[in-house]
Amino acid sequence: MKKNRSQLELTKEEMTSYGYQIIDAIVEHHDTQKEKLPVALGSREEMDSLFLEEAPEMGTEPTEVLDFVLEKVMTKSTLMSHPKSYSFVPGPSNYISAMADALATGYNIFSGGWAASPAAAELEIVTIQWLLKIFGFPKKKGGGIFTSGGSMANLTALTTARRIKCGDDFSKAIIYLSDQAHSSNIKAIRVLGFKKEQIRIIPTDSEFKFSVNKLKNCIAKDRLEGLMPFCLIATSGTTNTGTVDPLSELAAICKKEDIWFHIDGAYGAAAILSKTGKSLMKGIEKADSLTVDPHKWFYQPYEMGCLLVRNHKYLSHTFTEKPEYLRDIEGNTSEINFYDHGIQLTRRFRALKFYMSLKTFGLKEFRNAITYNIELAEATEGILRKSKRWEVVFPATLAVINFRYNPISKRYTDKELDGINQYISEKVVSSRKALLVTTILHGQVVLRMCLINPRTTLDDVKETLELCGGFATEIEEKLAKG
Amino acid sequence: MKKNRSQLELTKEEMTSYGYQIIDAIVEHHDTQKEKLPVALGSREEMDSLFLEEAPEMGTEPTEVLDFVLEKVMTKSTLMSHPKSYSFVPGPSNYISAMADALATGYNIFSGGWAASPAAAELEIVTIQWLLKIFGFPKKKGGGIFTSGGSMANLTALTTARRIKCGDDFSKAIIYLSDQAHSSNIKAIRVLGFKKEQIRIIPTDSEFKFSVNKLKNCIAKDRLEGLMPFCLIATSGTTNTGTVDPLSELAAICKKEDIWFHIDGAYGAAAILSKTGKSLMKGIEKADSLTVDPHKWFYQPYEMGCLLVRNHKYLSHTFTEKPEYLRDIEGNTSEINFYDHGIQLTRRFRALKFYMSLKTFGLKEFRNAITYNIELAEATEGILRKSKRWEVVFPATLAVINFRYNPISKRYTDKELDGINQYISEKVVSSRKALLVTTILHGQVVLRMCLINPRTTLDDVKETLELCGGFATEIEEKLAKG
Ligand SMILES: Cc1ncc(COP(=O)(O)O)c(C=O)c1O
Ligand SMILES: Cc1ncc(COP(=O)(O)O)c(C=O)c1O
Repeated sequence: MKKNRSQLELTKEEMTSYGYQIIDAIVEHHDTQKEKLPVALGSREEMDSLFLEEAPEMGTEPTEVLDFVLEKVMTKSTLMSHPKSYSFVPGPSNYISAMADALATGYNIFSGGWAASPAAAELEIVTIQWLLKIFGFPKKKGGGIFTSGGSMANLTALTTARRIKCGDDFSKAIIYLSDQAHSSNIKAIRVLGFKKEQIRIIPTDSEFKFSVNKLKNCIAKDRLEGLMPFCLIATSGTTNTGTVDPLSELAAICKKEDIWFHIDGAYGAAAILSKTGKSLMKGIEKADSLTVDPHKWFYQPYEMGCLLVRNHKYLSHTFTEKPEYLRDIEGNTSEINFYDHGIQLTRRFRALKFYMSLKTFGLKEFRNAITYNIELAEATEGILRKSKRWEVVFPATLAVINFRYNPISKRYTDKELDGINQYISEKVVSSRKALLVTTILHGQVVLRMCLINPRTTLDDVKETLELCGGFATEIEEKLAKG
Repeated sequence: MKKNRSQLELTKEEMTSYGYQIIDAIVEHHDTQKEKLPVALGSREEMDSLFLEEAPEMGTEPTEVLDFVLEKVMTKSTLMSHPKSYSFVPGPSNYISAMADALATGYNIFSGGWAASPAAAELEIVTIQWLLKIFGFPKKKGGGIFTSGGSMANLTALTTARRIKCGDDFSKAIIYLSDQAHSSNIKAIRVLGFKKEQIRIIPTDSEFKFSVNKLKNCIAKDRLEGLMPFCLIATSGTTNTGTVDPLSELAAICKKEDIWFHIDGAYGAAAILSKTGKSLMKGIEKADSLTVDPHKWFYQPYEMGCLLVRNHKYLSHTFTEKPEYLRDIEGNTSEINFYDHGIQLTRRFRALKFYMSLKTFGLKEFRNAITYNIELAEATEGILRKSKRWEVVFPATLAVINFRYNPISKRYTDKELDGINQYISEKVVSSRKALLVTTILHGQVVLRMCLINPRTTLDDVKETLELCGGFATEIEEKLAKG
């Protein structure tokens, strides 16, 4: 039975039963996830005691390792697809895409060059075209690439923006983003080698939108100083509040000033599939580049980000390299080698999961799910508004809602309220019953729910608010006692 | 049966049978791969006619989509794990890791921060420690991170090198690499914003090794000009020939000159597990950073790269950001948030496949497989040396062998030989029976085999050489006819 081990192989029978066991575990997980506790806790010490060991010289029976992993590893992970995982940007995922990914990995498809897999390259082209159309980008000229996530999509976008707008000398180039832009943009800017003096963080208005007036002043001043405004990063769906920047206005400024217009829609852009989202996203089609993260609100499993560009040549001009041992595999220009369109050479076949899930469910179910998510957040806002204990700090926007405990019967100081809400979040998380953490808005500690899971019900939300309420009572009693 | 579609869900029964069908396909593929043709061909036109369509508004039965994908997509992909895939760096992969990946995706584990999954973070720490030990890096102080591949590992390394060595001002910083360094390094250097004038490409010697003498001259000259040598990229296993640069000598220069010593061992470093490899890799333990690609010679499926560093603080100093909504999840310093150690925020649970495959097979089988690969290339060299038709252009090194058709009975010009060998490769590929492309060594077109698949046999190689020989005869006859 073990005869093939030195080729790292299993027999057909071993593979089948091992594979079925994996499927059984995944199916069981999908089927019973909602009854599990979403949050896993574990200190480094506990984890070390479970897992720390030297690399084993000798092997172990496959199923023994698998059983251990199912019992110890998979139970010590917070479930980002759980209906009560409200924090950060959840990853609701879907079963079809998970299986599509398994298929791509099982065949170990290399999705770097056309010759390595014509089908993988083609499906990337086709699904990118679907996205171009959804976002109103030019169909013929437009292009894009799938990445590991939003961080890499933003990095790829900014690398491209610099190449196209600045060429080799970017010493005077200035980049503009708002104080609500996602931190991955700053990380990318630093990786790219921009100096602090080249970054303008423009304060947002009271609704967390890019302040157009301040931006204009800033650009004008920079021009006066002989600097070169070259790139603006807007956000369509800020991570904190779901706010969409005034895209059309920003697009007009960028056009007038010859500035690259990048939109980070990693979490929010998918909302364009819903009616509410569509009207909020007006102007998104004017971007030079757009980050969308299918592993967020397009319900794909990790990892899948995407960058769309107005003109596919922007990418090839920025990323093409031609080493000797790749020379045999240059296709004609219409046969895209995606390694020439981004940073990665070796690439997984990410397009397959997007393709199979869209074919299986149809765009319609994606629309429905996204619309449901937005309405769920609005319903949550309704509940909070009617309550005497909760304050809506920022209204439901693109399925994000920010609120805090602030009972009308009491007059707590801001500091006390911060402490109470922090306490509620910590207690909720350590109860493991929901993943609900805080963020800071206008200097206040607030609770934030991101409701992009189509399997989260209003009852789930109500139960969580009750849980929060219980902890609020607890801390109020403590405070009352002094 | 379709009741859950708007939550993008399937029933339990649907999930199980769909999953089993996926497994059956993967198992069948693993079991019969060697009987398939490794190369898939397809023009953009053909692919368009198969796959181009608008995003479907309505869904389709899951198994209908799956059947289509199995029949049309998976058959139009070149098989990088096929025993006769000799080109680029093949991806032999292994079944256990493919399944581990499916498990991680099925649960959609988020491997960015400790709190999101203590077990995922811990397994990354544990497996990174295994690698640190294998490469003789400091166990306590050392650190690392898994990436999407070698390109990202190199980019992460160079970002780190610049931060640690140059701080904010890198206008005078100079980076050194050889003409055999992998193109991903140049791509990374460009993304980082270095100018052409800051890159020194040092010619290699007749054995494709970093010329230490030329390097020393170059560094000295740069210093005289007031420039700041800050980083050197060596390669342990060049992609073209498997050559390992003189690591110990280079390490000594870097130490003396206070230069960051990065080694790109993406494809070759794994050879340290074999005896031959171990002696070639002497000095690798002196690197400040080391790229290793588990998705190459550690037999993992795509994507999995890895960067190791001498001091884990190098990474956190370079990549830490602290946005508001992440503030609740800062652990103590020993509970690593890997998003603070690299470019990605959202990250797949890559460590799981490395962990499960090493536990299942044991390091011993990896050693055996790697040793087998090296000996297979040496045996291939033996066959070629004994033949009257083939010339060994560069001896078997780390499982790579370069050769060309050059029969002793004839006196072809260099240009004719280039044409003949190019012809052979093109014919082999279009026969679809083997993936064998050319590279350029010392200006000559040569055939290159990278034999890192443990399932490739000497018979496979012999069959392929016979195939090549047949095409050689064919072109010689054509040439003879004029
Ligand atoms: C607006 C925005 N941009 C970028 C990112 C980063 O995406 P990723 O985590 O996939 O790297 C996020 C993640 O939450 C985000 O919300
Ligand atoms: C030496 C070397 N470095 C880096 C890379 C790039 O690795 P990846 O394709 O995983 O990005 C390769 C790929 O062949 C390589 O051989």
